[in-house]
Amino acid sequence: MGTFMHRRIIVIGGVAGGASAAARARRLSEEAEIIVVERGPYASFANCGLPYFVGGEISDWHGLLVQSPEVLKARMNLDIRVRTEAIEIDRQGRTVTLKDLDTDRVYTEAYDALILAPGSTPLRPPIPGIERPGHFVLRNIPDARDLDAYLADRSGGRAVIVGGGYIGLEMAEQLVRRGHPVALIEALPHVAGFLDADMACRVHAELRQHGVDLHLGKAVRSFDDPDASDGAMASVAVLEDGSRIPGDVVLLAMGVRPETTLAKGAGLTIGITGGIKVDEQMQTSDPHIWAVGDAVEVIHGVTGRPMLLPLAGPANRQGRIAADAIMGRASAYRGSFGTGILRIFNLAAAGTGANARMLDQAGLSYQAIHVHPMDHASYYPGASPLAMKLLYDPGNGRLLGAQVVGLSGVDKRIDVLATAIQSGLTVDQIADLELAYAPPFGSAKDPVNIAGMAAGNVLRGDVHVAHCSDIGSCDTETTCLLDVREEAECVSGVIPSAMTIPLSQLRARMDELPRDREIIVYCRSGQRSYYACRILHQHGYTVRNLSGAYLSWSAAAG
Amino acid sequence: MGTFMHRRIIVIGGVAGGASAAARARRLSEEAEIIVVERGPYASFANCGLPYFVGGEISDWHGLLVQSPEVLKARMNLDIRVRTEAIEIDRQGRTVTLKDLDTDRVYTEAYDALILAPGSTPLRPPIPGIERPGHFVLRNIPDARDLDAYLADRSGGRAVIVGGGYIGLEMAEQLVRRGHPVALIEALPHVAGFLDADMACRVHAELRQHGVDLHLGKAVRSFDDPDASDGAMASVAVLEDGSRIPGDVVLLAMGVRPETTLAKGAGLTIGITGGIKVDEQMQTSDPHIWAVGDAVEVIHGVTGRPMLLPLAGPANRQGRIAADAIMGRASAYRGSFGTGILRIFNLAAAGTGANARMLDQAGLSYQAIHVHPMDHASYYPGASPLAMKLLYDPGNGRLLGAQVVGLSGVDKRIDVLATAIQSGLTVDQIADLELAYAPPFGSAKDPVNIAGMAAGNVLRGDVHVAHCSDIGSCDTETTCLLDVREEAECVSGVIPSAMTIPLSQLRARMDELPRDREIIVYCRSGQRSYYACRILHQHGYTVRNLSGAYLSWSAAAG
Repeated sequence: MGTFMHRRIIVIGGVAGGASAAARARRLSEEAEIIVVERGPYASFANCGLPYFVGGEISDWHGLLVQSPEVLKARMNLDIRVRTEAIEIDRQGRTVTLKDLDTDRVYTEAYDALILAPGSTPLRPPIPGIERPGHFVLRNIPDARDLDAYLADRSGGRAVIVGGGYIGLEMAEQLVRRGHPVALIEALPHVAGFLDADMACRVHAELRQHGVDLHLGKAVRSFDDPDASDGAMASVAVLEDGSRIPGDVVLLAMGVRPETTLAKGAGLTIGITGGIKVDEQMQTSDPHIWAVGDAVEVIHGVTGRPMLLPLAGPANRQGRIAADAIMGRASAYRGSFGTGILRIFNLAAAGTGANARMLDQAGLSYQAIHVHPMDHASYYPGASPLAMKLLYDPGNGRLLGAQVVGLSGVDKRIDVLATAIQSGLTVDQIADLELAYAPPFGSAKDPVNIAGMAAGNVLRGDVHVAHCSDIGSCDTETTCLLDVREEAECVSGVIPSAMTIPLSQLRARMDELPRDREIIVYCRSGQRSYYACRILHQHGYTVRNLSGAYLSWSAAAG
Repeated sequence: MGTFMHRRIIVIGGVAGGASAAARARRLSEEAEIIVVERGPYASFANCGLPYFVGGEISDWHGLLVQSPEVLKARMNLDIRVRTEAIEIDRQGRTVTLKDLDTDRVYTEAYDALILAPGSTPLRPPIPGIERPGHFVLRNIPDARDLDAYLADRSGGRAVIVGGGYIGLEMAEQLVRRGHPVALIEALPHVAGFLDADMACRVHAELRQHGVDLHLGKAVRSFDDPDASDGAMASVAVLEDGSRIPGDVVLLAMGVRPETTLAKGAGLTIGITGGIKVDEQMQTSDPHIWAVGDAVEVIHGVTGRPMLLPLAGPANRQGRIAADAIMGRASAYRGSFGTGILRIFNLAAAGTGANARMLDQAGLSYQAIHVHPMDHASYYPGASPLAMKLLYDPGNGRLLGAQVVGLSGVDKRIDVLATAIQSGLTVDQIADLELAYAPPFGSAKDPVNIAGMAAGNVLRGDVHVAHCSDIGSCDTETTCLLDVREEAECVSGVIPSAMTIPLSQLRARMDELPRDREIIVYCRSGQRSYYACRILHQHGYTVRNLSGAYLSWSAAAG
């Protein structure tokens, strides 16, 4: 087992990818000498848990230590060196220069194989005032403890979060939980960049419902000194439009950049995204050096384009693969799919594969559909609607991407759809998936099946769809909006200019509809309007179904 | 759209498969005349919800009516005839003889296409006394209302459930919920036949913990008149071993048989399982007759063997496919995978694909592994272990079956594994699936990934496994059991005759182990013992990992 090829392995970085690589290498070889170098004070900690510690859901930060250095040493015979920085690689000599951050001692260690897992660094763009006190980032346990201690002295203080990605959103929830008024600033038009705008609007509504003061589409121009009227304890974020948002604490969550200082210093090839370039075995341009985790550039499994994906799951897999490669085992990383999930208050929001923006950038054509099935049988208590979006190839029907937002059952559906994408399934195959059904868990037609059916209907041309973004611009001279919900349902609101004929009366009242205009039909979720489209189409009308129907329209309208 | 081929379609049976077929046919053709014949008083009701109505979780049985006849008529222009029985098919004349059960009027209707969706009938084997009053079955709304009314007058009465399948188990929970002491009798050695014995033992424990009096491996010999000492209001179930179980109410949940009276009368081909034989388009041996749902024989997607699968999801899909076929559309049913889930008190138990018994019967070789990962990140509150079993092809690693039991996250994992089986994934591909991770929902290595890795390790020969069933019979002369948990963990119990060396001390104390015997290693969940196996194997010991480790052993030991 494990042709022994490398006597001495040095791993730079002891968190997700690095820790996985070291553990896997040890399982494959009892003989190898394995040194793990970690700049911070802890190896193998759970950085995904940091927001929950700051918010108080996880009460003791020690719980975030996946393995103590003692256990790593005793169980895995790893030589863990924390508070140690790798400052230079000598590729010719196959040595790495290390610095003990406590003693400032600098020394070199020889390697046969080197694994770089340095992770990423929070972005701090050169905005005036960004280095003011009271500004925090959240990447590791010391960051979290510093922020926790700062907040402990400023209970109820106003928090300003800059950035609406995973960390920014999770921290918005956690800071509200801790009793802080929260303002969240996102330079792009919507938060949660893994979602498209038509799905992210639901996250906006959830944030606002929980009192988060949301500033979208506006970058921070500067962080100013507070003046007397602001009374802010940290600084005042001044936006492009001049608005001033005072903060007693500021969290910078503007994304991360791959930590490539060491790799660049060694002359390793860097990809166009700024991440270390690796092949499918996670090998860099140097045959004795591998790299894994946030610092590497990966290939998107759907678009084929290079990307950065700073997530723990892929990092762990890459670590395993690098160790396999070093030990001479066949193992390959076949691309990243960006599968991710976020809890934001009562909502979960998740995505997998490519979103519309990524497909546009890659020049790939796609169709999109939106459905709103219940998370489980509607007759069983507690059912709530899911918002689902599928993106798929209009030629062969292969699923390209999926997004799901809702109160319950979101994680299940995104994982099934992630598995479907990674298996190359078409929307028809997704419609046919045999999934587990009992009333507390799902429906005889699972939401995933329903989404697949809706996409298949469009793919085959059984129905054409309009999107909510088309509605604002549609010309009432050429287009007629038709609402087929029952009258009682329309009381809470209709799309302006829509005429109403309940589905149950459609056959009898069809003559009321214009034959010289295109009819765009909607109901609540899109199912009845699909039936209406089928009826009208067969009677010679030109008709499209509004994808996602009133639920999508009203969510987008805010 | 929809080449119109059949002017008049008659559907026999208006529940899952029949209702789906009728609705789909209407969507494809506005012109077809569609008659739906239903023997019971309701079409399109949710029979999967019946236990929850009896238990009171669903308070109003009207909620179980998916669509009222009026809505079906108005929206879908279906001619629904409830309380109408189909009594004969004239295949030559293409007519079906119908009987109005309220008026006894008998009449015939001509068809161009006939869809049989008659469902199944509860088994009532000829056990003496089985027809006694106070005995119930649960297949439709009248059954449920009858049982509910009977129980209303016998609050706290002793319930005897015969049969430990889906209905029997769901009803055990619901009757306990309603305040009845429950005895459950299962003729086979374990309940939940979709699971293997080593997984079903967890369901037994959950039942017992909630006070259910479980009688396994014993058939009912007779239902006797209660005597004075029993004081039972219904009857006394007498088991093979003579034990007498008095019941104030008896629920017969011994499975179902396909309803094929009409099909047999018409001379349609019946399969070896007793279900109506159909092809991939759900067409019977008569080119004008299709059949769907519980009454048909399907092909197992893994074993290729014919089977019966009375579940709602497949019935709905088959209904769609039959309608597609009738309308000249390409659509095919590609086999059933038996994906199912059951909630039993706090537990969920689920399976997909083939279990060990089915693989044995089909003569297919397989390997099995058991793992116990946490349902989400262990450092985030509320995590609980899942019990997972994978069965896979020892040649190519393809997943053949999976079973999952646990408190939370079971439905997600079984659906991902069901999707994996239906996509033909190998255990290595399952190990590599990129799934959605945030601490409340999963782990960076999802339980599905961990199961795939464990299977891959065995598949590649990196570790060999022993199973709990091997432990009882192993010879201490040739085999040494080794527990590598920490000492504190062993206090709650060890497997008899095991020696203990914590993993952290294994390298130092390896000499204590015998080189002339095979060592079977276990820990709590199987992960540390896998590490131990890797260490010992590399040092020349003959070693196997106990699949599922102490958690599997203690669950099986009860």
